[in-house]
Amino acid sequence: MTVPLITSLQNPQVKRLVRLRTRRAREEEGVILIEGAREVSRAVQAGVKVNELFLCPELFSLEANELTVQLNMQEARVTHLTRSAFEKVSGRENPDGVLALALTPGVHLGDPPHDAVVVVLHGLEKPGNVGAILRTADSVGAHAVLILGRGADPFSPNVIRASQGSVWTVPTVTLPEPEAWAWLERHVFRTVACTPDAPQVYWDAPLTGRVALLLGTEHEGLPQAWRETDEAVRIPMHGSADSLNVATAAALVLYECVRQRRLT
Amino acid sequence: MTVPLITSLQNPQVKRLVRLRTRRAREEEGVILIEGAREVSRAVQAGVKVNELFLCPELFSLEANELTVQLNMQEARVTHLTRSAFEKVSGRENPDGVLALALTPGVHLGDPPHDAVVVVLHGLEKPGNVGAILRTADSVGAHAVLILGRGADPFSPNVIRASQGSVWTVPTVTLPEPEAWAWLERHVFRTVACTPDAPQVYWDAPLTGRVALLLGTEHEGLPQAWRETDEAVRIPMHGSADSLNVATAAALVLYECVRQRRLT
Repeated sequence: MTVPLITSLQNPQVKRLVRLRTRRAREEEGVILIEGAREVSRAVQAGVKVNELFLCPELFSLEANELTVQLNMQEARVTHLTRSAFEKVSGRENPDGVLALALTPGVHLGDPPHDAVVVVLHGLEKPGNVGAILRTADSVGAHAVLILGRGADPFSPNVIRASQGSVWTVPTVTLPEPEAWAWLERHVFRTVACTPDAPQVYWDAPLTGRVALLLGTEHEGLPQAWRETDEAVRIPMHGSADSLNVATAAALVLYECVRQRRLT
Repeated sequence: MTVPLITSLQNPQVKRLVRLRTRRAREEEGVILIEGAREVSRAVQAGVKVNELFLCPELFSLEANELTVQLNMQEARVTHLTRSAFEKVSGRENPDGVLALALTPGVHLGDPPHDAVVVVLHGLEKPGNVGAILRTADSVGAHAVLILGRGADPFSPNVIRASQGSVWTVPTVTLPEPEAWAWLERHVFRTVACTPDAPQVYWDAPLTGRVALLLGTEHEGLPQAWRETDEAVRIPMHGSADSLNVATAAALVLYECVRQRRLT
């Protein structure tokens, strides 16, 4: 079987891939874009269905070579690109020649166990922070991560990369705020807002049972409506730092949930 | 007074600034290089002595304008660069036109209080991780951060930036391993290694009194010799993530130190 080769930067597939770097285009097509041999490999291992694979053999690492062997088992349609064409569609400074289109995973929240921990993110934009929070959520066995409104797209190439595969293992859902509230209420979660002006330190709050940890941006914090939660907690601060990085704050409270559960 | 203007990329000052992006050149001159209006401003506020200021008015933001007013109080020698010359010496993708050379701060470890917490880093390279650890060390009021051997330079422009000013407020010292051990022994620190194969979970370890927290790289962990410590602790892990980011692990153990001190 001959693999088609794209050489022109004007090729419609190149234009399509560039368009798919925007969230709107991905949502319209119902696909996600995964870049990097390691990232694609992790996704495939987690059961993500790759439909199309775009490869640049000129840029290949050993890891990328192994991946194509692994993916040959699947029914992905493969296209080759010249180096200049690949660099045009890549979002990286040093691309490794591997780009995949996959179906957007269908994520179901399911029935939370009696001691489920859920992370709720509001307004977070930085892919590095969202990815780090997904990684920690995975480490503590969180039931789900809910992303409200138009914050970071958890299936953007950069969040996928920063999460180091955790985006495939922790159910991660973007949904409108009222739906999130309704789901949390229906399942009787205790809502815990993490905010610098809370009177209570996080280790003094009761964090057993079903807990939903609410996190906002470092600068704006949580919206006013979100402050009417069951608990509000802060991280005690010493010294000159304005506030901890939001991913660090998330890790501290999530691990306090684990610590408080160790005897139950 | 006329401010000199550099227009040529071949200018000796341009070549010198490019050279000063390497640690060796900075150490030879005894200077540090700080890039960015916010970063220079924080350094000056913390008492760092800026000798030379390189500015590109074409790139200036409002923040940079305010900074030069603020710095006019000092005796820094000011040089202007054209945009192309500034882009040549900058380490950023989108430079803001502010670069400073300052004397390398002289850091003294001093006498640690009875409940001092010290962070000891071995082999960490990523500026983002070192900067995040400095930020958390600042948040918990750590007495010092010790960087062993040839790990990341805490006064590299990227660590300075990632630490968000904490590198100026937490005493941060690079020193040879035997000196670090001698200092910790002389002051009777309990050494606590953070390593994934430790049998003990971090919240079960006694972390009051003088504690030195040892952290290695995510992939290699701590060197064998470093494992003969008073305590070894791990972060409990669930799910698929190999190991937590080292800055996240540092934050968890450092805040456990704070938690255990809250009643003493």
